[in-house]
Amino acid sequence: MDETGAFPVTARTQIRQRPTRASYDRAAAYAVLDEALVASVGFVDDGQPLVIPMAFARDGERLLLHGASKSRLQLLLAEGAPLCVTVTLLDGIVLARSAMHHSMNYRSVVVLGRASEIVEESDKRRALDRLVDHVLPGRAQATRAANPSELRATRVFGLPLEEVSVKARSGGPLEDREDLELSHWAGVIPLALRASAPVPDPLHAPRAAVPSGAQHYQRGRSETGPEVAR
Amino acid sequence: MDETGAFPVTARTQIRQRPTRASYDRAAAYAVLDEALVASVGFVDDGQPLVIPMAFARDGERLLLHGASKSRLQLLLAEGAPLCVTVTLLDGIVLARSAMHHSMNYRSVVVLGRASEIVEESDKRRALDRLVDHVLPGRAQATRAANPSELRATRVFGLPLEEVSVKARSGGPLEDREDLELSHWAGVIPLALRASAPVPDPLHAPRAAVPSGAQHYQRGRSETGPEVAR
Repeated sequence: MDETGAFPVTARTQIRQRPTRASYDRAAAYAVLDEALVASVGFVDDGQPLVIPMAFARDGERLLLHGASKSRLQLLLAEGAPLCVTVTLLDGIVLARSAMHHSMNYRSVVVLGRASEIVEESDKRRALDRLVDHVLPGRAQATRAANPSELRATRVFGLPLEEVSVKARSGGPLEDREDLELSHWAGVIPLALRASAPVPDPLHAPRAAVPSGAQHYQRGRSETGPEVAR
Repeated sequence: MDETGAFPVTARTQIRQRPTRASYDRAAAYAVLDEALVASVGFVDDGQPLVIPMAFARDGERLLLHGASKSRLQLLLAEGAPLCVTVTLLDGIVLARSAMHHSMNYRSVVVLGRASEIVEESDKRRALDRLVDHVLPGRAQATRAANPSELRATRVFGLPLEEVSVKARSGGPLEDREDLELSHWAGVIPLALRASAPVPDPLHAPRAAVPSGAQHYQRGRSETGPEVAR
């Protein structure tokens, strides 16, 4: 499939609120999914919606999720329960002259679908490697791989990236014309998830070298951020 | 109600996965809710779970949500649909010697319940002020307040903080004893949402003073972070 193409708009992914902020662009969705570290996984349990933060990774045209084999969520995933996986990056606070035009700059992706379990061992191992490498590229090869009992204790699921929408806001405040004369400060406070210096485990000998990617850990895009239509 | 007390544990909020990371402590929940800027609001629409990122604020013993009056979500909120509001703060990446013990440090709060609309005008105005002040304390008084048509175009909802659970992990990797001899680097990459210098709206005159809280914007806790049982 073409990475530059667009996701089809379905009745369920069509964004009706502020459609000018919506997109179905595959590259835009992948950029958010590849930068973020945590997904909010929504499912329904006996009529009650539940949203759980989870680690995840994108593996080509699917999202990977994993967890302890016996958890309630994993059982629901294995049953093919309908899911909504939402990933949000917060880019800034928008301060406007008027209270009602205060806003946030953000990029978010919503994925709808049903997951299926990855059971074949080599595929499962590759998926687990992706989950580790999503956090720090190359890390999967620089740790002890899962042993058979660890592999059994973990279930891994793939959620196809088929029904996907992106919503984003960037830029400064959008004000009513008559408010522009007001003297209140207006603008954006940029926000980003930033890393500080890695803290080594006191239990290991100083000989272990800090992985290069951990030293000045950074995710995704540059400091200035992309220009997204607002 | 006592801010230092605990939330009751219900069948729906009891955490079965890694219960040692769970808590029902009111102060711990409030600390997360007061630090975070975005909530993942989960609801069910025709059997399909949906999770939407939203601004929010805590107002005493309720969470405040708001949005455009005619949106699908606002209609569901007004009907008293069951909700799950999950708020997650990511504190670090935990690199272990073994792939399976890689983890994240985080603090998350899950709130279950049904919202009710805040319709009385003075209560609604106060709630909107809280939503603005959550982002930047004192800001509500330093902007133009909502006019009657803006007030009509926005619905505000309160979700009682009654069924609430907290889950958190902190600290370094937890390894199998036999892995401690491995030479792979292990430790934590601390992460935090950080602000950079505010960017003024080019449309206003330079006379507007940057609000003091915006200049070195910071949320919640200190750099070192709290010590939470892991």
